[in-house]
This record gives sequence, structure tokens and C-alpha cells, in this order.
Amino acid sequence: MSADIGVTGLAVMGANLARNLARNGYTVSLHNRSVGRTDALLEAHGDEGSFVRTETLAELVESLQRPRRVLIMVKAGAPVDAVIEDLVPLLDEGDIIIDAGNSFYEETRRREETLREKGLHFVGVGVSGGEEGALNGPSIMPGGSRESYETLGPMLEKISADYHGEPCCAWVGTDGAGHYVKMVHNGIEYADMQVIGEAYDLMRSLAGIEPADQAKVFREWNTTDLASYLIEITSEVLEQEDELTGRPLVDVVVDSAGQKGTGRWTAISALEVGSPVTAIAESVFARSISSQQELRAETNAAFSSGIDENAPAAEFGSDFVEDVRKALYASKLVAYAQGLDMLVAAGEEYGWDLDLKSIASLWRAGCIIRADLLDTIMKAYDADADERPKNLLLAEEFTEAINECLPAWRRVVAAAATHGVPAPVFASSLAYYDSLRRDRLPAALTQGLRDYFGAHTYQRVDKEGTFHTQWSGDRTEIDG
Amino acid sequence: MSADIGVTGLAVMGANLARNLARNGYTVSLHNRSVGRTDALLEAHGDEGSFVRTETLAELVESLQRPRRVLIMVKAGAPVDAVIEDLVPLLDEGDIIIDAGNSFYEETRRREETLREKGLHFVGVGVSGGEEGALNGPSIMPGGSRESYETLGPMLEKISADYHGEPCCAWVGTDGAGHYVKMVHNGIEYADMQVIGEAYDLMRSLAGIEPADQAKVFREWNTTDLASYLIEITSEVLEQEDELTGRPLVDVVVDSAGQKGTGRWTAISALEVGSPVTAIAESVFARSISSQQELRAETNAAFSSGIDENAPAAEFGSDFVEDVRKALYASKLVAYAQGLDMLVAAGEEYGWDLDLKSIASLWRAGCIIRADLLDTIMKAYDADADERPKNLLLAEEFTEAINECLPAWRRVVAAAATHGVPAPVFASSLAYYDSLRRDRLPAALTQGLRDYFGAHTYQRVDKEGTFHTQWSGDRTEIDG
Repeated sequence: MSADIGVTGLAVMGANLARNLARNGYTVSLHNRSVGRTDALLEAHGDEGSFVRTETLAELVESLQRPRRVLIMVKAGAPVDAVIEDLVPLLDEGDIIIDAGNSFYEETRRREETLREKGLHFVGVGVSGGEEGALNGPSIMPGGSRESYETLGPMLEKISADYHGEPCCAWVGTDGAGHYVKMVHNGIEYADMQVIGEAYDLMRSLAGIEPADQAKVFREWNTTDLASYLIEITSEVLEQEDELTGRPLVDVVVDSAGQKGTGRWTAISALEVGSPVTAIAESVFARSISSQQELRAETNAAFSSGIDENAPAAEFGSDFVEDVRKALYASKLVAYAQGLDMLVAAGEEYGWDLDLKSIASLWRAGCIIRADLLDTIMKAYDADADERPKNLLLAEEFTEAINECLPAWRRVVAAAATHGVPAPVFASSLAYYDSLRRDRLPAALTQGLRDYFGAHTYQRVDKEGTFHTQWSGDRTEIDG
Repeated sequence: MSADIGVTGLAVMGANLARNLARNGYTVSLHNRSVGRTDALLEAHGDEGSFVRTETLAELVESLQRPRRVLIMVKAGAPVDAVIEDLVPLLDEGDIIIDAGNSFYEETRRREETLREKGLHFVGVGVSGGEEGALNGPSIMPGGSRESYETLGPMLEKISADYHGEPCCAWVGTDGAGHYVKMVHNGIEYADMQVIGEAYDLMRSLAGIEPADQAKVFREWNTTDLASYLIEITSEVLEQEDELTGRPLVDVVVDSAGQKGTGRWTAISALEVGSPVTAIAESVFARSISSQQELRAETNAAFSSGIDENAPAAEFGSDFVEDVRKALYASKLVAYAQGLDMLVAAGEEYGWDLDLKSIASLWRAGCIIRADLLDTIMKAYDADADERPKNLLLAEEFTEAINECLPAWRRVVAAAATHGVPAPVFASSLAYYDSLRRDRLPAALTQGLRDYFGAHTYQRVDKEGTFHTQWSGDRTEIDG
């Protein structure tokens, strides 16, 4: 009658979260639809802490202290609803249901609302860090009511990743905010991987640096501002030699990456809230393109397949490698700036008062995009609300970083275009920066065209109001 | 008791469609919620053809021959449902409700299903061409049942735009297909306007060509492959002088363009069906960025505001103008290729057997993107299904066009990056082309990283199956 928390759904992620909780001193009740998995977990790891074996959800609920906390870790979608439906009649007012899977935030919002009306707390929790993170300390992004965090928060903080003594877990916002922030994390992760891929392709195609040598380059880069988990494992992957062929592993892997997931959701949501996440969207599209194998083969056959044969490899020496590093860093900062901006826009849309400082802090350890950079980003937002930068690029240190990277960034994007190496995120991020920076944009012409063909009207820079030029008449301007 | 069609909702678009129908010899019953509009229309244009005045929907329905055809032209969203709800009890099996407004295709799908169950035909019709098109001949994209097209089609074809004797109207596909195709038309329109804007900005910022002189350039371009309505009106807008200030109008218009519409829907739908529409998405994002006025002002203040001061204007002479023209044309072809590809993907998703040849034919006249190019595109798809190009760029004439534009396209994208003029669609389209063209993409590295941190597995180029490297173990490969 005294377990601290129940976990239902004991596939790897659920089992590892349960073990993590138990290892941190909590008594964990275990449940799985087929009891075999429960017993397997107990047999292999039952000695790691205090577990309670249960065979039914009713037993699970009975075994918990109040308010009861039941963590669900099942496949996103209908299975979550099915477990909730079974749980609800067993619970009492004030009890807490936790969905730690990769649920879509709109579903979390719907479930939270339904359960709130029944007096239950529903907490959608974003968990990043994969299987190992779940076991040893993930980044945890809980949504739901503030009240639920009072009892649940300390447990989640205890099992979360640790960044120099600070937990990578904090209450993010009501209802779907936790799953939303996790989704944007994944969107940024898409961009992070894409810019690494572009850097790799440029260094290989233009400078002729082979994967094993690039492993050294990335290892070196991991001692710079770029230091991060993804840069670190890039060197591990690039130095891996395929046993079967003796070739670099990266040359025997099919170059098609899927995109049916959170990256796509992120780009869709950004479009819905009107936030320009060019880097994330281009990363999602780059994956779609990579998966169009038939079309790629036909295009490859119809056009020249290689890189520009006139590319003067001699031009691309160690200076070029440093240029690519700076282009990668600047593009990465744009991706983060866009991701954080979309959180603000989504916060306004969904009524979440998201704290970018706190969110950046959660990503410093445990998750896939973990990096000291997140600590720097966190500090950039460590000011009173009205003193915070309106965009990451406007934080003093990042303005400086962009300025320092800019000439290299321009050179790399120009070289990619000139010599036929696709670098969609490098190019798109640079265009984003230049668009924000310019005095005037050609959107004025767009407005003129829209007024011409659709009488959409326009505003003027020199007086208030909306105006329309009578294009098919005498071309005088009238109030629109 | 003998009107051919009823029109309810007599704001400008509805009134103009009604007049267009009457001018083409149909007897048109008119209805509007407030009868004042009906009477105003009759007073101003009652002599243009045969109209029947009605005061209620019941009268409207009574006045129609069977099967009754009622065309709704009200604001998209709830108003459409409200009119449908009022109409349904008045109609009989086999009658046809036509929604000619800008409805979201998912709503059209829902309405069609509901009404089909009641034995009624519901036809969502995309109409492009603005007020003038509605009156004189729009491009018309009807969805709904094939059966409904038998009686409705001839009427719509008669009032549609005429391209050298062929109507710009044809049945597109079931349920929401018409509104979907219209949506993608608008997405392409976004890209068309954005590439014009990028060309204008580059010629102004780098070559120093003022708007009035650019009007001449665009007029000249309108005699080339680029010939189109949007290029034509660009010269009109650019040569327009502001009466108040004597400056070019384009310099006094606020440079912020909205994006809460069909362009955004197009990008979202493309993400949902996994189709990479980089040109359309970048165009939507370019509008969002242009609207972030506060952020732009702060970024402008924090960074250098102008273009690269070292840009050697002398470099950008008449050769540059021709380069920009080619970059515009190539980027535009990519936008069309992507738009058509997403139609195929959506067709698979929603069960529409979309005929790209026919769809291209509808856009040749009447609509905003009208151009002889659409006739060429139509001909590119004029072959047996298995002989059609898999992508527009693979049609022989467009492969040639891309090859001819390619060096210029590369130079322009490189110049934009080098000198700080944002050209997101030029750059993104080039990256798309290069991505499709390359032998290998860095997606292989992405797959390696995903296998490393998430055991996502990968495929190999040299044998079937899925594989996983035991990264945290001895790094041997196992079946995944």
C-alpha cells in the first residue's frame, strides 16, 4: 500500500524509467499488459531497488500511496487512450496520470482537459535521451498543472540528467506544454544533424577529406563552441569502418533518412503559429528528398551526377575547414533562435508562459542536443523579462559570434552553390539572417502585386491607414 | 421554375460569378441574406442576362430546374456550414450544392461525405482569378463526384477562362480535390511572387537598377520563357510613381506581407504527405519574417543594415541581369516541379487520381499564375501514364532549360550569399536540384547518428535487411 509511483508499459523505455526511479530510492509498482515482461524485469533488475509486482491495473492502483501517480509508457496514440480509459475508474480525485511517451501535444491538450473535468491531473511529459537516458538520467519536460508538479516534480528532478549539479527537469507549462517543448527539441535535433551532414558533405566533396580524417576534424571541433553530444558521436560514426567491406561505414549505409515524426510536427506547428523555422523545415525536407530514391536515381541519370568538375580542390584547404566550422556554428545558432522563437509564438497561441531560460536549462544534459551551448543560451535569457533578447541572435555574445562567423558563412554558402554541393540549411539560415538584418525587403513589391491583382490593399511607410491604387482605373491611390 | 442555377452570397465574387453565368446564357436565380444586395445587383446589372430575384433560400430552391444546382459563395468556415444546413431540408436526392469559396480541403471532404450520405452532391470548386476573373472567366477547379460534373461541368466550362479555345475548367477529382488543387495553385503563386521579389532585390541592391528601370527589364522578360501575368504586372507596379512623394510606389509601401492563408496550408499539407516543397515553404516563411517588424528593426540596429559595402557594383552589369533572369526561371521551375509532386503525393494520400496534364491546362489562363509556361508543362505530361516524367525537371525541355540556366543560377545564389542579399527561394531551389542530382547525400551520416543514439537501425547499399552497429559494445554489426 505504499509504492511511490506506478509504471505501466514495460518495454525498454518504461522499464528503464522504472529502474531509474527505483535506483533513486523510490518504491515502484510495475505493471505490463502481459505479465511476462514484468517478471523479466524483476528477474534481471529486481535487486536494483524496491519494486512491487502487480498483474492488473487495479492491483497497480491499489499499491500506490495518495495522491497516486501512474506513469504510462506505451505507444503514442490509441494505446494511451486505452490505458487512460482503464485507469480512470480506478482513480480518485487528485490522482495523477503521467504520459511519458512521444504523444502529439494536441492529444495531450485534449486528454488533460478531459481528465481535469474528472478531477484528475494529467501530465504530459517530454522525455529525451533514448534508452540510456531513461535509465541514467534523461532530460525531462513536464507539462500539466502546476499543482501536480508539487508532488511529482521532485521525483522527476531526482531521476533527470544532472548538469553540474542542476537537474534537467522543470515544470514547463500547462497541459501540452511539456510534449510541445519536447517536439521542438526534436525539431532542433533535426537541424543539428542536418548542418553536421552539410559540413561533412562539403568537406568531403570539395576538400576531399575522407570520413576517417573527418572523424579527427569533428573531434577537434568538439573542443570549440560546437562541443556537443552530436558532434562527439559524429566522429565515432565517421571513424567506423565496415567489417564486411573495409569501407567507411557511412559509405555503405543507404542515404535515405525518414521524417515521419516530431521534426515534421515541429515544422507544421511553426507554420500554424506563423513562426519562420526555415532551418527545421529545410531539415525535414532534406530527409524527404533523401527518401525519394527513384526520383533521385532518375535525376542523377538525367543530369550530371558529380560535383562541379572544375572545383579547384586546392582552394579548399584548412582555411576551408575552419570556414565550414563557422558556417555550421552560425547556422546552428539560427536553428536554435528559430526554435526558441516558435516556442514564444506557440506560448501565445496556447496560453503557456514559457520560460526560455528554464527550457534551455533542461536541454543542457540528458537529451540528444545536449551541449554547453545550452548553458550559454540559458544565461543569455537570464535577465528580467523586458531585458531579455527578442531573439537569440540579439544576445550580445551571439551577435558577436555571428559577426565573427559571417564572412566564412558567406564563403561556404557561395562555394556550395558554385560547386553543386547542396547545403540547404546553411543557405537558408544565412538568408534568414540577411532578411532580418536588411533595411527593406521585397515584400513591398509582393504587397504591390497583391494590391494589383486582388485589391488586397497595402500600408504606407509615411502615414497610417490602408491604401489601394486603382490599377485598372486612373492609378490614383484611395483609402483601402 | 426554370432557372439553371442559383447563387447565394452576392458579395463581389458571388455577384460576378452570377453575372458571368447570366452573360453566358444561363438563367440565374439570385439570393442573398439581406435582399438589398440582390436588388443592387439587379439594378446595376439586371440587363446583362436572365436573372430570377428571390428573397429566401426556399424561393431560390423552388425556382431551379432539377437536378437543382445551388452555388454558395460565402466566407469560408462556419458560414458555409450554416448555408448548407439551411439548404439541405429544401433539396432532394441528386441535387447539387457547389461551394465556390476558398474552403479548406479537409472541410470540403467532411461536407462532401456528410451530404453524400444524404443523397446530395457536394462540389467544392476552386476558383482563381479574383473579382475580374470571376466576371470574365476564371480558372475553375471542380471536385466532387464525377456524376455531378456531367450536368454542372458544361456550365462551369462555359464561364471559365479560355486558352486559345480550350476552357480552363475540368473535373479534378472526388470530394476535396478541387479545393486542394486551388490551394496548391496559391502555394505556387506565393513562390512565383517570392522569386520575382528576390530578382528585384538583387538587381536593385547589387546592380543598382531603380524600380522604373526594372519595369523595363520585367517588360523585356515578359517576352521570354518567363512571360506571365505576374511578370507583366510586376512591371506595372514597379513603374508606378507615388503621387504624394514622387518616389517609386514600391518604396513607400510597408514591406510586410501576410501569410495566413492558402500558402501556409500548402506547406502544411506538403509536410503531412511527406513532399518536399522547399520553394513554397521558404516563400511562406519569407512573408512571416517580413511581418516581424519589431524583430527586424532590432536586428537591423544590432547588425550592419546595408548590403555588403564591398560589393563591386561594376561587376553587376547586363550579364548579371540575364543571370538573374535565368535564376528566376530555374527557381520557378523547381517551385512548379515541387507543387506538382505534392499533388501526386496528396492524390495517393486522399485517393484522387489527379491528372497533372489536365491540372496544368486549367492554370493556363484565368488564374494568377497564368502563363504560356503552363501550356508547355501540360505538353510535358501529354503522354501515356508510364511515359510521363516522374518530375517536371525530368521532362526533356525542362532538363534542357535547367542545364541552360544552371551556371547563371549558381552565380546568382553565390552572389546573394556573398553580398548579403537574401534569396531564400533561389538558394533553396538550387539546393533541392543539387540534392536530387547527387549520387550520395549526407543522409547516410544522419542514419548513422540515429543508429548510434537511438538504435534506429539502417539499411545497407549492398544487401537487404536492416542493421544495427553495437555502438556501446564491440561495434560489430548485427541484424536490426
